[in-house]
Amino acid sequence: MPHPLDSFFAPDSIALIGASRDQEKIPGRLLSMLRKNEYPGKIYPINPNYGDIDGLTCYTSIAEVGAPIDLAIIIIPARAVVGALEQCAAAGVKNAVIISSGFAEEGGDSAAMQDEIVAIAKRTGMRISGPNAEGFLSEVQKVAATFSPTVDVKPGHIPLVATTRRIAIVAQSGGIGFAIKHRAKALGVAISYCVSAGNESDLGAGEFLDYMVQDASTDVILLFIEGIRDVDKFLVAARRAAEMRKPVIVTKVGRSGAGERAAASHTASMAGWSAAYDAVFAKYGFIVSNDLDEAVTIAAVLTTNPLPKGDRVAVLTVSGGAGIWGADTVSLQGLKVPELSQPVQNQIKQWMPSYGAAGNPVDVTAQGVSSGGLQKSIELFGASDEVDATLVIMSFASETRQPFKEAELKPVIARQSKPVVFYSYTLPSDFARRELAKSGVVVLSGLTHVGVAMRRLVEYANFRLAPQSDVRGLPARDITAHLSAPTLSEFDSKSLLRDAGIAVPDETLVTARDGLDAAIVRAGFPLVMKIQSRDIPHKSEAGGVRVNITAKGEAFMAYGALLDNARKHRPDAVIQGVLVGPMAKKGVEIIIGTLTDRIFGPMVMVGFGGITTELFRDVTYRPAPVSAEEASAMLAALKAAPLLNGFRGAAKADVAALSRLISEVSVLAAHHAKIISEIEINPVLVHPEGQGVTIVDALVVGRS
Amino acid sequence: MPHPLDSFFAPDSIALIGASRDQEKIPGRLLSMLRKNEYPGKIYPINPNYGDIDGLTCYTSIAEVGAPIDLAIIIIPARAVVGALEQCAAAGVKNAVIISSGFAEEGGDSAAMQDEIVAIAKRTGMRISGPNAEGFLSEVQKVAATFSPTVDVKPGHIPLVATTRRIAIVAQSGGIGFAIKHRAKALGVAISYCVSAGNESDLGAGEFLDYMVQDASTDVILLFIEGIRDVDKFLVAARRAAEMRKPVIVTKVGRSGAGERAAASHTASMAGWSAAYDAVFAKYGFIVSNDLDEAVTIAAVLTTNPLPKGDRVAVLTVSGGAGIWGADTVSLQGLKVPELSQPVQNQIKQWMPSYGAAGNPVDVTAQGVSSGGLQKSIELFGASDEVDATLVIMSFASETRQPFKEAELKPVIARQSKPVVFYSYTLPSDFARRELAKSGVVVLSGLTHVGVAMRRLVEYANFRLAPQSDVRGLPARDITAHLSAPTLSEFDSKSLLRDAGIAVPDETLVTARDGLDAAIVRAGFPLVMKIQSRDIPHKSEAGGVRVNITAKGEAFMAYGALLDNARKHRPDAVIQGVLVGPMAKKGVEIIIGTLTDRIFGPMVMVGFGGITTELFRDVTYRPAPVSAEEASAMLAALKAAPLLNGFRGAAKADVAALSRLISEVSVLAAHHAKIISEIEINPVLVHPEGQGVTIVDALVVGRS
Repeated sequence: MPHPLDSFFAPDSIALIGASRDQEKIPGRLLSMLRKNEYPGKIYPINPNYGDIDGLTCYTSIAEVGAPIDLAIIIIPARAVVGALEQCAAAGVKNAVIISSGFAEEGGDSAAMQDEIVAIAKRTGMRISGPNAEGFLSEVQKVAATFSPTVDVKPGHIPLVATTRRIAIVAQSGGIGFAIKHRAKALGVAISYCVSAGNESDLGAGEFLDYMVQDASTDVILLFIEGIRDVDKFLVAARRAAEMRKPVIVTKVGRSGAGERAAASHTASMAGWSAAYDAVFAKYGFIVSNDLDEAVTIAAVLTTNPLPKGDRVAVLTVSGGAGIWGADTVSLQGLKVPELSQPVQNQIKQWMPSYGAAGNPVDVTAQGVSSGGLQKSIELFGASDEVDATLVIMSFASETRQPFKEAELKPVIARQSKPVVFYSYTLPSDFARRELAKSGVVVLSGLTHVGVAMRRLVEYANFRLAPQSDVRGLPARDITAHLSAPTLSEFDSKSLLRDAGIAVPDETLVTARDGLDAAIVRAGFPLVMKIQSRDIPHKSEAGGVRVNITAKGEAFMAYGALLDNARKHRPDAVIQGVLVGPMAKKGVEIIIGTLTDRIFGPMVMVGFGGITTELFRDVTYRPAPVSAEEASAMLAALKAAPLLNGFRGAAKADVAALSRLISEVSVLAAHHAKIISEIEINPVLVHPEGQGVTIVDALVVGRS
Repeated sequence: MPHPLDSFFAPDSIALIGASRDQEKIPGRLLSMLRKNEYPGKIYPINPNYGDIDGLTCYTSIAEVGAPIDLAIIIIPARAVVGALEQCAAAGVKNAVIISSGFAEEGGDSAAMQDEIVAIAKRTGMRISGPNAEGFLSEVQKVAATFSPTVDVKPGHIPLVATTRRIAIVAQSGGIGFAIKHRAKALGVAISYCVSAGNESDLGAGEFLDYMVQDASTDVILLFIEGIRDVDKFLVAARRAAEMRKPVIVTKVGRSGAGERAAASHTASMAGWSAAYDAVFAKYGFIVSNDLDEAVTIAAVLTTNPLPKGDRVAVLTVSGGAGIWGADTVSLQGLKVPELSQPVQNQIKQWMPSYGAAGNPVDVTAQGVSSGGLQKSIELFGASDEVDATLVIMSFASETRQPFKEAELKPVIARQSKPVVFYSYTLPSDFARRELAKSGVVVLSGLTHVGVAMRRLVEYANFRLAPQSDVRGLPARDITAHLSAPTLSEFDSKSLLRDAGIAVPDETLVTARDGLDAAIVRAGFPLVMKIQSRDIPHKSEAGGVRVNITAKGEAFMAYGALLDNARKHRPDAVIQGVLVGPMAKKGVEIIIGTLTDRIFGPMVMVGFGGITTELFRDVTYRPAPVSAEEASAMLAALKAAPLLNGFRGAAKADVAALSRLISEVSVLAAHHAKIISEIEINPVLVHPEGQGVTIVDALVVGRS
């Protein structure tokens, strides 16, 4: 299927605006890189100062070329860029990459020049990448439209290629994007594209991601972002990736205070709030990695393996100590390293000396290499129903000794129906990498990264995109009237929730002393009384809450005391009245919240409150709305989740009712995102299975 | 100062028992390695089958040599080893390394042969390393007493050496030990020794550690263990390392179920319980790392830098994206990346183009390299009081372009009084590594590892060994009588604690109904009543606890109910009586425990109990006894520590009193380790500052 960016990534012709003979400088390097990487299309250097460069006719201006141009690469002083773009548009150039710096990242007049670039793209339909970009590399069509030193071709160097499946790299930072490429290629992982987005005047990371998702030559995507600008395109691409089950490994930086401060200015991005990004990544099954080598390791494992059917790993080694370390590492990631059955152990024992170990980790010892025991064990685990993946741990340091014979290993790997991951505890030699590449094997070198990658593989295999239609709507109701006051009290908030279709306790707002009797009858004992005022947001601190009232006299005394306390606490507060309701049955305390992220809009949050939230940061977020099913997944992701599942002999909590409530609150926040900025249900009590939930307190904040 | 192992690590003469001409096999490789690495002493090959090997006279037996021999390297079939050792001892050989396998790791008769080796060492005083060892390498004295392929010398290869300070590697697993060496050398980190301990028949990891601690040529130690056998020697060495402030980086494997299962058989070690190891490591300031590259990175940072005075990091880069990533990474490790003051920023701005960033992360851009801005910034941060360390983030991929001029960088690094750490986001080239090595710089390649290393550097700088004499003893009292019963009740346990000198609440054991009146008067209202029986360990579950009793009638009813419940719960239980005491004042709930580790003996544990312990595993351990000061450090290490320090407006808890109690309990467990196996104080309530603590419940378990 054709994509609008096909002519960008696979141009038949390229104009190089600002071409130079000086290969030491960036303009000169661009031409040299294009030719060294054997770009097969036409190249038109543009520079009024030269008649020809390196055997190519050089043109005074783009207008002079007189042939169709798919891509203009622009590397001239910032002040000249807008004029050049206008000429490109006039000449019918389809796409442009602006390498030049000095635009939005500088602010002031320079930022205004970037606005002009945006306007040209909109007006003319020409697609523009950059400015302040490092360009892109297409290994598929041999287009090196970048000055990155990492795409330089060294004479006599034969690239290492171990994988047939390819990864695409989309990065806002060119430095990092091409560094990822550099490291991936060193492992033998094949690349389809590497593109740096720079300032994203027109083309952004979201649209580039979209290209890679639909691109048939790309199997795995590595995404490096500081913040997403083309959010709608990003979300469409993310959903499509999840639907197609094409893995996206994402690094989002700007997570710390300092990082955020810097990201806000660098490439002039809107960094946004990392928790919201992580919520979106979780929704679409993106694999989050915050380390370069870890991300590349995950990519390598994904390009060389099928997805596992379970989480049981066989650790296969020739060194006892390394095997134990490997078993520890994958166990620490939550994978299982089961002891193998006696029949399997007996089989393995045929291939190793008596001082080996067959239990798992399986140590066939150095002798197991020469005897072929390693390959046989890999085959055995491939056929066994006792493990789902194999981690091979060896020393691949030798520059001369073949670690595996290609003729023996290649068919084993070709037939594999389970992941087989190779790690070297010594630094792997170039020789070993190339020998194993012949069998399609990537040798990995970071054990923790390998453990994380194997875990992510299992998680990715288990990921299911929540169907969009699954969100059961609340009845469509107009709740605008509830939000007329600048702030809402608990009573106001609960009234809003009730009108929106969410069940809240049957409570009475007593506005005068003579209404208390009826309220008591309605609530029954024991009951709770709470002061209600839009001016008193923290009722407990104001002495505004009385619980477990068991007698009428007590209730009347409490009524007076609550009003007195409120008056003392805040003499000018307008008092709505006292809310009287039944004391809630016991249950597990949960907080549900919604908020509005400035990038991704409404988000829903859930946690257990108290120290689990404040000290252990044990909360999960998702973009709102979520279905009840997604809400259950959010709850299951909490470390304290066992508290809902019959912890220490307690009854199992009504997770189904809680999940429905989370979904309802998220739907309310999403449907009314224009008028609601926050909802906080704190706490809701979750009763034993079948007994539902009780909203104890609630606060809705409108958009001001 | 001479050390008993000097002649082991720096032998004047070596006998190679089992020497061979076949360099493809291990026995032949041993001789070849010794000579290739330019061993300067005498070598005596021993093998009755040859007259000479490679120009050296070959002897029929060790007795034939007729010259003093410092070290025998033994590589002959397992069955012949004991005989060879006897001959060595007879010939006055001082030390032996047994490379041969097939001893304790195989069990049965083979294990018995290892016992004979142990006996020879004891009887003759000859020191023996192995069997099943990979030998050792001394780079200081050029002794390659190992067959590890990693010590092979390639013709024409010039080793990369960036550091003048050296690391020693002590590993039980030879495969891993030499892999650490391989990776450290690839970074340019200089090595003093690398020794593999194997089965540790005589010489163990503890004694090797001791050697490296006192060795003047060793600055940092890397220790890889599955389990410690020579515990006493290990503990002496650990304390000495802490006193000398020589850093020890330790990897302990066998942490997972599978790892532990394997470690128990591999090299026949006693793996032991990892939490106890970690407690010992924490006590002596060992730097724990469970990843090979991370451990080597920490070692590299330690060998090339002074310790920092604080935790503020300047992140200095030429790539905006990489700088943000770096700031995130060190922030995630708990280090600070403060925004620099305007004066400092103004200074930096002179060295970079307008699109750079001076805030921190500091992005001087690619132009900052050519302008010298990078070096100047490093110098500026060295002199500034706004940061304590600098992280330089660049691309060191070029094979031709000098990243820094030696003449400019070398004096900057030589003068440094703060850590300066260099990270490359692209894979560093051999050229760049060698260029920077001239200035004493190691180029690192794993960003997360760098972040962890910088954090560990700060922690190591802050570590203080708790003085041994600091432990305030409890009065020496005989508590044997308390432990005559096979199990103790709460009353028994509290009586023991009281007699041992630990304050427990004033409570009365009521053994007959007519004693209740006096007990009530003594306790006062509100009071607590608890059934006491050595047959009912879980009082609450048996309906055996009543709290908050406020009236005499209620107390008498409770008395009857408690006895009834106990009889129903366990009709055959022998009832001691009912414990009556005052209701404790409110406080923060804490659990204090002691247990006996089979490797390290008594350990003390502290945590907050409830879900913090059971779901978030938020507990700390230390070897007992601990001083009150060490106990405070244990409390501070808990994630939930803020709960003691005035969390959410609560009063600050009496941490001093709690620390004293932890110390007392630990002293009790340590002094009576032969008769007490466990103590559990659960809970103790910690009252506001100055108001002390209350032991609510306690259980002491004797040794059976």
